[in-house]
Amino acid sequence: MDLKLDAEALTAFLERHFTQVADQFEIVSVAPMELDLRLNVTEQHLRPGGTVSGPAMFALADVAVYLSILSMIGPVGLAVTTNCSIDFMRKPAAGQDLIASVRLLKLGRALAVGDVLIRSVGVEDPVARASLTYSLPPARPSA
Amino acid sequence: MDLKLDAEALTAFLERHFTQVADQFEIVSVAPMELDLRLNVTEQHLRPGGTVSGPAMFALADVAVYLSILSMIGPVGLAVTTNCSIDFMRKPAAGQDLIASVRLLKLGRALAVGDVLIRSVGVEDPVARASLTYSLPPARPSA
Amino acid sequence: MDLKLDAEALTAFLERHFTQVADQFEIVSVAPMELDLRLNVTEQHLRPGGTVSGPAMFALADVAVYLSILSMIGPVGLAVTTNCSIDFMRKPAAGQDLIASVRLLKLGRALAVGDVLIRSVGVEDPVARASLTYSLPPARPSA
Amino acid sequence: MDLKLDAEALTAFLERHFTQVADQFEIVSVAPMELDLRLNVTEQHLRPGGTVSGPAMFALADVAVYLSILSMIGPVGLAVTTNCSIDFMRKPAAGQDLIASVRLLKLGRALAVGDVLIRSVGVEDPVARASLTYSLPPARPSA
Repeated sequence: MDLKLDAEALTAFLERHFTQVADQFEIVSVAPMELDLRLNVTEQHLRPGGTVSGPAMFALADVAVYLSILSMIGPVGLAVTTNCSIDFMRKPAAGQDLIASVRLLKLGRALAVGDVLIRSVGVEDPVARASLTYSLPPARPSA
Repeated sequence: MDLKLDAEALTAFLERHFTQVADQFEIVSVAPMELDLRLNVTEQHLRPGGTVSGPAMFALADVAVYLSILSMIGPVGLAVTTNCSIDFMRKPAAGQDLIASVRLLKLGRALAVGDVLIRSVGVEDPVARASLTYSLPPARPSA
Repeated sequence: MDLKLDAEALTAFLERHFTQVADQFEIVSVAPMELDLRLNVTEQHLRPGGTVSGPAMFALADVAVYLSILSMIGPVGLAVTTNCSIDFMRKPAAGQDLIASVRLLKLGRALAVGDVLIRSVGVEDPVARASLTYSLPPARPSA
Repeated sequence: MDLKLDAEALTAFLERHFTQVADQFEIVSVAPMELDLRLNVTEQHLRPGGTVSGPAMFALADVAVYLSILSMIGPVGLAVTTNCSIDFMRKPAAGQDLIASVRLLKLGRALAVGDVLIRSVGVEDPVARASLTYSLPPARPSA
């Protein structure tokens, strides 16, 4: 399977449809069924003590899987998250951005499943892992 | 088991330690092992199309379970979320606040588990369900 | 919504289609969007130390939600589990059967979601909680 | 970190402590923080239609992560599963054994987290993915 949207096209999609949050994210790399997304960590993502908040990591995982799906099926607006399971395993490194690495494990007609490892930049041990299921719009031409 | 923190004390805790987000949340009711928390939905919580975003619902569930735990064990700062599983089941009603209803299912020495139903105000069918595990600080006096 | 299959019809379905396991389970009660299922605990379900095994509890939750879905939509053979999240919270009481109590939270065209509390007979505190998603067959007449 | 138990020692542990199920499983390979476990699929694991049952796959994932933890910390009997999230993504290939590939993502003092891909032998696309959390016994000498 080839990419339908490359990093440039995904960035344009993000800026057009997710105006409020687009500048927080940067696509590091994209390949068939794989995508790396960087969260530019700023004050708004932090909890007391300087840790990146759980909701900010959830958002990172969610957007990363969504963009990976779009890279494969094109700019479909109607994919919705139906389930997420996330494990928070370590404290993120202070003052570091986070990178989410997605593997799309399934891209079916009705459902897509991706898993994600989130790491602090420059640190091997993952901060969190997540798996997400998306429901895909029925009208989509077969991919 | 009795409450160690009532609605007023929990609100004060939220305002002191979670300054940035405290005004988004309102404690509707609290009882032993149960708590209802309201999210005052504003522009910042919405996705394109007017839906409350997944991360906003995750944050609501996370804070609700956290406050329910604190209501039982007192103002411990060190409880951390280790796992969350969340199912997004329906679109929230447009222009409505959300209410998260927590049941604490386990409050052990090391781990606490709560489950949550999230509903739009005035609508019976739940928008989302979540279950969360918190790791509790070891030094806590026996509760 | 009314029941399409009552306890008797569900039991007959189980005996016809799940011959190997049907005698392990007993339908305690069934109502719209709710069902209680009992696992007759025997040697085969136990781990060293006399605890009911995780897979046995997973199977109980899985069958219970499946039967609850069938009670609402009729004897459809093609519903398949797509996701399960399960928390094991306490040791089951020794020598006791288990009862799974299902709430169906969503019964849509394509997906159904149920959550489950598992308790030892006669004990209030739950042994485990689970939530399961089923993918429903597309050809099903609208329910 | 080095292995405390190799494939031979893990097999011996399984045969001693899990007599009933030991002959279903075969350790394919073990390395620090990684383990592959094979399920010898027989009639008892099958659902109507010849598919491996969900509980059988749950059991495979559960045992695989457990053995991977033991390979790192030694033959501790008291690690217990506290959470599992599992996605069933494809039908297993008919008549094929299954292989679970574990990555231990965290091995802390109190909690261990592993994720698992389950594949039919000879098929690249995974049948299921799972992530599991284990609670570790407190008395364990520092590892």
